[in-house]
Amino acid sequence: MPRTRLERQLAFVLEIDRLKEVLRRTYLTGSPRRENSAEHSWHVAVMAVVLAEHADEPVDPARVVKMLLVHDIVEVDAGDTYVYDETAVATRAAREERAAARLFGLLPPDQAGELAALWREFEARGSADARFAGALDRLMPVLHNVATGGRSWREHGITADRVVARNRTIADGSAALWEYARRLIERAVADGVLAPAPETPK
Amino acid sequence: MPRTRLERQLAFVLEIDRLKEVLRRTYLTGSPRRENSAEHSWHVAVMAVVLAEHADEPVDPARVVKMLLVHDIVEVDAGDTYVYDETAVATRAAREERAAARLFGLLPPDQAGELAALWREFEARGSADARFAGALDRLMPVLHNVATGGRSWREHGITADRVVARNRTIADGSAALWEYARRLIERAVADGVLAPAPETPK
Repeated sequence: MPRTRLERQLAFVLEIDRLKEVLRRTYLTGSPRRENSAEHSWHVAVMAVVLAEHADEPVDPARVVKMLLVHDIVEVDAGDTYVYDETAVATRAAREERAAARLFGLLPPDQAGELAALWREFEARGSADARFAGALDRLMPVLHNVATGGRSWREHGITADRVVARNRTIADGSAALWEYARRLIERAVADGVLAPAPETPK
Repeated sequence: MPRTRLERQLAFVLEIDRLKEVLRRTYLTGSPRRENSAEHSWHVAVMAVVLAEHADEPVDPARVVKMLLVHDIVEVDAGDTYVYDETAVATRAAREERAAARLFGLLPPDQAGELAALWREFEARGSADARFAGALDRLMPVLHNVATGGRSWREHGITADRVVARNRTIADGSAALWEYARRLIERAVADGVLAPAPETPK
């Protein structure tokens, strides 16, 4: 059992190494493999550094970065939940709450409380920082899908209406980023990279 | 050619996706594969969030995090340089300067300048933030090696004297972390996980 404060902190650091083995549905742009949640977390954190000026409300970029660094850590226990998988999405909150208790609980209590609160704030989208972090977390897979010819969308039979429905919350964090994403999605349909919405029977 | 500010920023974000394909010498703790520089960057950034209190000089944790998020981006072009490979270490600075000019140069000029300066500060270890970031970047592979039974050390025939020589700069950022690492290294030798220094011929 870890005893000192430093030992508890390092036990947490070593435990979250397993996030590197949690696979997401998106593919890397330059390689045929799927990305994992650790490298995704790095990527959206850098994105926050670079795109903070596009937030509609005032945000604290350092807090957005920190939030994105920890936003997927619960997946070490709970796994990645595909946003288009409605069954998995329904059980997600309970699975992730248990994971948060165990994983952040490896840390000294003050830090466990701080990081769990930051994760919950992200999940609830109840602050400007969380809404902007959420926008980046949604925008990234759209960029990856477009850059890989819609590979993940096609594999899961995702149509444009669902992409729009799932990602329009980008607008809650940044009108400019949602406008950009919306145009990307339109162009993806025009280019045959993303299937259009199925026709409604008359 | 990207034109708007947002387009330049997103061109940079997509380009650095390739850091996920740059392999380091260290292995994951729970899987037989080597880790890549993107997931490593996430891991040390989280480490900075959790361990900032162990810095000997006052540091700005948010700046240390940002520095660690960008510290390996040059490897997209320059590749990872193994710290124990003296030939590669000798040519590293020039290769990485070219890479920094191209990669950060994808960004709007103000951001290119800021991130390149932050990367140079990290490389030079000329500030308290950089010395602490450097300490974390060195400590992490020691933790990974110990957690994997010294796998990477053994594969490259690294002995304890070289591990101490390469990592004692951890003490420039944190006496507590170096003390911890030093004890880990001693125990690794005692446990047969790390080969002792070769005997000097009389």
